[in-house]
Amino acid sequence: MRLRGRRLDHVLGVHRASVGDTLCVGSAGGLIGTGRVSAIDRSVLEMDVMLDQPPPPKLPLTLILALPRPKVLKRVLRSIGALGVPRVILLNCFRVEKSYWSSPALHPGSLREQLILGLEQARDTVLPEIVLRPLFKPFVEDELPAVIKGTLPLVAHPIAASPCPREIVRAATLAVGPEGGFIAYEMDKLVSSGFLPVQIGDRILSVETAIPTLIARLF
Amino acid sequence: MRLRGRRLDHVLGVHRASVGDTLCVGSAGGLIGTGRVSAIDRSVLEMDVMLDQPPPPKLPLTLILALPRPKVLKRVLRSIGALGVPRVILLNCFRVEKSYWSSPALHPGSLREQLILGLEQARDTVLPEIVLRPLFKPFVEDELPAVIKGTLPLVAHPIAASPCPREIVRAATLAVGPEGGFIAYEMDKLVSSGFLPVQIGDRILSVETAIPTLIARLF
Repeated sequence: MRLRGRRLDHVLGVHRASVGDTLCVGSAGGLIGTGRVSAIDRSVLEMDVMLDQPPPPKLPLTLILALPRPKVLKRVLRSIGALGVPRVILLNCFRVEKSYWSSPALHPGSLREQLILGLEQARDTVLPEIVLRPLFKPFVEDELPAVIKGTLPLVAHPIAASPCPREIVRAATLAVGPEGGFIAYEMDKLVSSGFLPVQIGDRILSVETAIPTLIARLF
Repeated sequence: MRLRGRRLDHVLGVHRASVGDTLCVGSAGGLIGTGRVSAIDRSVLEMDVMLDQPPPPKLPLTLILALPRPKVLKRVLRSIGALGVPRVILLNCFRVEKSYWSSPALHPGSLREQLILGLEQARDTVLPEIVLRPLFKPFVEDELPAVIKGTLPLVAHPIAASPCPREIVRAATLAVGPEGGFIAYEMDKLVSSGFLPVQIGDRILSVETAIPTLIARLF
């Protein structure tokens, strides 16, 4: 196996590996294992690769996320890739800026790039599924019942009465609103679809901090 | 009370407040409450302020963090401010680049700026204490015993045998290593000082994702 470009730069700059060193490797969509460096210079790395383990299991979670602004989306995608979220639905809401939907950060290549950085961090090889839903009402009315079927549907809401449950041993669907929150109409639609509003304390967190916090409580 | 500059821009661009609207406000180091907008234009906002509640309580936690690279440090400081960590010790380790210690991100004004952004997010007013310790060994030998006294001392370590405990109802000291982890010598020093190595699963997370995850498990 040969590495060039970004991955070679990472091995040179971060691992500072030399011949004989062993690195964690994985095959896109497949197994993970180890690679023993057989040759390395500024332009190419060669490794003898043994792939013998499955990647870490995914969480039993669908994340429904109000589309964040592009810079935040990139960081959230890396964190989602690393945390093992298998499926993310990026949803429009009243407080999502319309311009976010035309951002280059939503191009398939850009989504994939950020997700792969997250997967590499966590030694995972399986890309999460990312679904774009730029219309709130038809999504909630027509698709949401099938999404939440067989799961515990929760919506993060700072003023909810219930704390986010801990260590649930079942599948969940988690909805996280935009900065500023879901509006009352959106909360009503989610609650009447079966979602339980839950909170994580007095402190209102940014979406980047709230997502790992909620996931760490739930699983 | 009058706002100009960054805070006025935030009210105009994010809250889009107009006369009569009510905003959450707080006084640095003091109470939080509400501000009713009495006048607003492009250059200044005037509010009638009522401060009548304490800020949210801090966590009973000291975080010992291997100094991250400057860009990551800024984001981590915001998250620390928002999560309610009252005290952070930025520590040197073998895998911390020496150049990070001369970054402008460590200037008191820069630390403060990022912490305040985090506090504002969470409606807190009390700045965390940030301590810089550019020498690992003297810190661990001379200061660490007093730091951990009366707390549960934990060190995050991906290959630890014990999972990170959940919902502890006591004070903790949490050590988080650099990207690449503490070296064996450093782990030995921490363990012989009384730290328990704990892990948060198969997935190795970036420091930005690991910190909220660990805190959400512990508290």
